[in-house]
Amino acid sequence: MSITITAFASSPDRGRGHARDMRVRWALEEVGLPYEVRLLSFQAMKEPAHLALQPFGQIPTYEEHGLALFETGAIVLHIAEQHPGLLPKDSEARARAISWMFAALSTMEPVIVEREMAGYQEGDRSWYQERLGMVEDRIRRRLGQLSARLGDAEWLDGAFSAADLLMVTVLRRLEGAGLLEEFPNLAAYVTRGQARPAYRRAFEAQRAVFLASAKD
Amino acid sequence: MSITITAFASSPDRGRGHARDMRVRWALEEVGLPYEVRLLSFQAMKEPAHLALQPFGQIPTYEEHGLALFETGAIVLHIAEQHPGLLPKDSEARARAISWMFAALSTMEPVIVEREMAGYQEGDRSWYQERLGMVEDRIRRRLGQLSARLGDAEWLDGAFSAADLLMVTVLRRLEGAGLLEEFPNLAAYVTRGQARPAYRRAFEAQRAVFLASAKD
Ligand SMILES: N[C@@H](CCC(=O)N[C@@H](CS)C(=O)NCC(=O)O)C(=O)O
Ligand SMILES: N[C@@H](CCC(=O)N[C@@H](CS)C(=O)NCC(=O)O)C(=O)O
Repeated sequence: MSITITAFASSPDRGRGHARDMRVRWALEEVGLPYEVRLLSFQAMKEPAHLALQPFGQIPTYEEHGLALFETGAIVLHIAEQHPGLLPKDSEARARAISWMFAALSTMEPVIVEREMAGYQEGDRSWYQERLGMVEDRIRRRLGQLSARLGDAEWLDGAFSAADLLMVTVLRRLEGAGLLEEFPNLAAYVTRGQARPAYRRAFEAQRAVFLASAKD
Repeated sequence: MSITITAFASSPDRGRGHARDMRVRWALEEVGLPYEVRLLSFQAMKEPAHLALQPFGQIPTYEEHGLALFETGAIVLHIAEQHPGLLPKDSEARARAISWMFAALSTMEPVIVEREMAGYQEGDRSWYQERLGMVEDRIRRRLGQLSARLGDAEWLDGAFSAADLLMVTVLRRLEGAGLLEEFPNLAAYVTRGQARPAYRRAFEAQRAVFLASAKD
């Protein structure tokens, strides 16, 4: 089976692994599937060939024979459904893990992304500091609720699953913001995710793209 | 099989059906499953009993025997997996529909919700109009991409699916904003969704809660 994903040709974060292809790479490494990467320029992402795969002109995409998928949640879920290792076998535990997958992408990620958007779009406005404070309070509230639920458990719901994979990559986006550190159990949770051998391999693979492009 | 969902005891939108229990009601109506509703006050939503079901203190939740789920994406997916009518049988078409489910919740919804949040949190700030314009431009860009992909198709990917159900409820949140009307094919798409008998039944059921509470 031949799998191809797309990623940025030139890493906006200089190989720190915040681009969302990291989620798909990590999932593929967890289940032990090889894959190819097609690198795209920012221009190519907005051209018809890529829009046919990803209607919003973004990365990553996932192709496997005739099947083309987009949205990291859907791609990770597809991989998890086809291969053991990312979702519990028990159907109820599986449904609960999927609740947490959506919680990562539909409850935690939006408010974290909003902080980044504010930086890009409002960083030079007079109101920026005040609004940043408002956004950070929204993030803190969600982190507080997540921290309360996680408690001293290792993973969100029993064994490591696709839900933890997504949640760790979402929380990692807060790197450098100083917010995660207010919740030591969440900071330890992210560290635990990043220590997984599959995470390390995925991280090195995306970093190699940056290192190669930086040499040019 | 006995299904119980949670919803607001007192509808913040006076029965206009924007609360997210509407998604779950609609899905249950599409597949023909009866359900009970447990109404919660805003205070009860933040108490330990509810937090055990929904870690972020929100509605809706879904209970079926011993299984408890949260996140509308996960709940609708669970219903769609257990009962015919909301996802294609073909496994590739099914995976593509799931891409669109995540697109509704992870790409379209966050920017639309951001407009509502700005109204709540920033409506009285001097910068509000300027920021609202920025948020609306983000929404327009996403609507434009979605409109281009939908073209003159009836639904997102072939037959009506759980993806359309989620996308229609997300786009409906723009009611009154004047943005959807800039994209006539999307406005017609939302109207098409709302014309489905299952949608109508779900809408009337949530409206009945408001009407009953308004009588008190
Ligand atoms: N909800 C989408 C988001 C994809 C996304 O935001 N991709 C970013 C890179 S991490 C992107 O392509 N940004 C460039 C752009 O939006 O123009 C998913 O999870 O796949
Ligand atoms: N991502 C969640 C969002 C749930 C949500 O935002 N629920 C709203 C009602 S529509 C709520 O409970 N708001 C009250 C609150 O957040 O305190 C889902 O799709 O289930």
